[in-house]
Amino acid sequence: MGTSTRIVTLLTDFGLRDHFVAAMKGVMLSVNPDLNLVDISHLVPPHDVHSGAFILAQAYHCFPAGTIHVVVVDPGVGTARKALAVMAGGHTFVAPDNGILTYVLDREESFTAHEITADHYFRKPVSSTFHGRDIFAPVAAWLTRECTLQQLGPPVRQPVRLKIPVVTRVRDALIQGAILAVDNFGNLITNLTPQDVPIYGGDASRSCKIVAGQREITQFRRTFGEGASGELFVIPGSSGYLEIVMRDRPAAAELRLGPGAPIGVILS
Amino acid sequence: MGTSTRIVTLLTDFGLRDHFVAAMKGVMLSVNPDLNLVDISHLVPPHDVHSGAFILAQAYHCFPAGTIHVVVVDPGVGTARKALAVMAGGHTFVAPDNGILTYVLDREESFTAHEITADHYFRKPVSSTFHGRDIFAPVAAWLTRECTLQQLGPPVRQPVRLKIPVVTRVRDALIQGAILAVDNFGNLITNLTPQDVPIYGGDASRSCKIVAGQREITQFRRTFGEGASGELFVIPGSSGYLEIVMRDRPAAAELRLGPGAPIGVILS
Amino acid sequence: MGTSTRIVTLLTDFGLRDHFVAAMKGVMLSVNPDLNLVDISHLVPPHDVHSGAFILAQAYHCFPAGTIHVVVVDPGVGTARKALAVMAGGHTFVAPDNGILTYVLDREESFTAHEITADHYFRKPVSSTFHGRDIFAPVAAWLTRECTLQQLGPPVRQPVRLKIPVVTRVRDALIQGAILAVDNFGNLITNLTPQDVPIYGGDASRSCKIVAGQREITQFRRTFGEGASGELFVIPGSSGYLEIVMRDRPAAAELRLGPGAPIGVILS
Repeated sequence: MGTSTRIVTLLTDFGLRDHFVAAMKGVMLSVNPDLNLVDISHLVPPHDVHSGAFILAQAYHCFPAGTIHVVVVDPGVGTARKALAVMAGGHTFVAPDNGILTYVLDREESFTAHEITADHYFRKPVSSTFHGRDIFAPVAAWLTRECTLQQLGPPVRQPVRLKIPVVTRVRDALIQGAILAVDNFGNLITNLTPQDVPIYGGDASRSCKIVAGQREITQFRRTFGEGASGELFVIPGSSGYLEIVMRDRPAAAELRLGPGAPIGVILS
Repeated sequence: MGTSTRIVTLLTDFGLRDHFVAAMKGVMLSVNPDLNLVDISHLVPPHDVHSGAFILAQAYHCFPAGTIHVVVVDPGVGTARKALAVMAGGHTFVAPDNGILTYVLDREESFTAHEITADHYFRKPVSSTFHGRDIFAPVAAWLTRECTLQQLGPPVRQPVRLKIPVVTRVRDALIQGAILAVDNFGNLITNLTPQDVPIYGGDASRSCKIVAGQREITQFRRTFGEGASGELFVIPGSSGYLEIVMRDRPAAAELRLGPGAPIGVILS
Repeated sequence: MGTSTRIVTLLTDFGLRDHFVAAMKGVMLSVNPDLNLVDISHLVPPHDVHSGAFILAQAYHCFPAGTIHVVVVDPGVGTARKALAVMAGGHTFVAPDNGILTYVLDREESFTAHEITADHYFRKPVSSTFHGRDIFAPVAAWLTRECTLQQLGPPVRQPVRLKIPVVTRVRDALIQGAILAVDNFGNLITNLTPQDVPIYGGDASRSCKIVAGQREITQFRRTFGEGASGELFVIPGSSGYLEIVMRDRPAAAELRLGPGAPIGVILS
């Protein structure tokens, strides 16, 4: 593999206070001391596979092809859930088979997935509670050396997938969507894209509003700077989805909405 | 440029939970996979350009000459505010033109600043809300390769500067100062330097006290260890400024003071 | 020294908001721009040497031999406490002499310790409050170049050690232990090992229970997945110690226990 395979990212729900993340990094550097380790996040809410999947989806494709992503949000650690190594879109993912790769698999045209069973790559003894250190980290590091996906274990045809809420046209003038995620600023990231709303999609003659919580949102902007203070408005966000935001406050707190909440688009 | 130009630091208000910081790093590593990326902080209070400017001022000069600092505290993202690339004191800064480089420009004898307009270095399409990923990150990475400041856009003579509170001698026995920042331990960092206070400045014959909030602080120490439990005292801090501190508690909470609050020095 | 001496870890109580950690990294990279810097944690509770010692103990041995660990939890900064450079188990530690290396010294068969007095390696002027930046960081970076422990200062025979609670067999059917630490998930890490409890130690014929707080814990599992919702149970943790945990909630909050709290094992 090329130079860029030295880059390994980490995404976990381990938090930043304990030794967990450093233990994984130490194990990886023990296998290959030349890795360029990059944190995606370690503040995924504990055991929240949906949030982890969303954060991964926004980050991985910014990295160069050949990057290896180690993803450990793993409420089923030590149970019968599989450990996976997956190649998709030029990236490699090492993760539990619990749906955390759903957005990646949905986005990429094809993938190759293998179960990780080749325990000679594991750190021994394998703890029943910390596969991040004992399985995922060393396997990721070995993948930067001579090891291939095929050597890790048997192919997996159907990795577990989460149910991601889809945009539904209920009738001509009504689209149903949902909140996918809330970011650090309290912005509500919807599953709507600019094409779902006339003003961004090119048909400015049709007016529309978004219904979220008990509120109607009628202002559609391009930037935060265009919004008025105290106003709820919509912007096309940097993830490719429409976001419901406020300029000075967290919209999530104002609307009391979170991931999974339904929203509606009413067209004139 | 030399070897040390491979070091790129990041300072943002993006927090550590979302994908934002990792997206910037991925974009930079896609341009130059050999960068040594170092976080300064991502916990600048959201949109707080003053706090970001202070943290940058304390950190940048510890890095070797040739380091590139990407600074994205950018409440005006997507508006008419300029994007800047600045060279000063042997360091390069890539940041919005909103005053966040004020301390750097005040400290260094000279600088060269260019507006960033050369959009062939940008990540496309450029989001209206995430210039960190689409403009600042790729431009910083290209600056570690063949690109020069001059190639980025036209020179800027007068970058925006914040008003930093200055120390004023009101009369011979009264100096007025202010709190510049509060650190993680609740220490209050003033804009006074040891030269402003006789006991540190070499004239131990003159007594003095500091008035802050409703309290008079009369104890001047060298280290935390010299302070008594529950006592407010002054130490010459590691940033070159005097700090008002307590040994066991956050002085900021005890005095209920924050950045910008006025303080007085009364000399005998 | 070999290639892997380029890896330097950092463990502090400086938090992640301020410039402190970045200042240390900048100073180190100014001495040796090729270092591979890895954070262990910067969220040790302020001045909590016991917690820092525990986190270090769980992390350091995962790194390759030759790694240098800079550990700055230093309530005595600027006082007469010594600064140490210690070699043990193939790793090098640079830290204040306040007990933070206790677990390391207990675990490794032998060690070499030197006081750091050679001030030509220091950053000048040396602040009285930030030896992390001015002493520990530059000394660690010089140790990756030509400098040896012996050149730093005189040997230290008896570094300060913390009192770590030990497991005591009070009588045949009663063992007294203690809580060593609480992790980010609220799991209570005890000082008991699997050998202390018949069910893990191989003698399944003897029943046992653990008394902690006002509660009796009678369920002994292998993984989180085996526990029932709302149930307190014991698992052999990834650190080699038994942990008292819950599947969905922080056991520390349920039992209102923290580091140092006594627990008992009652055998049938």
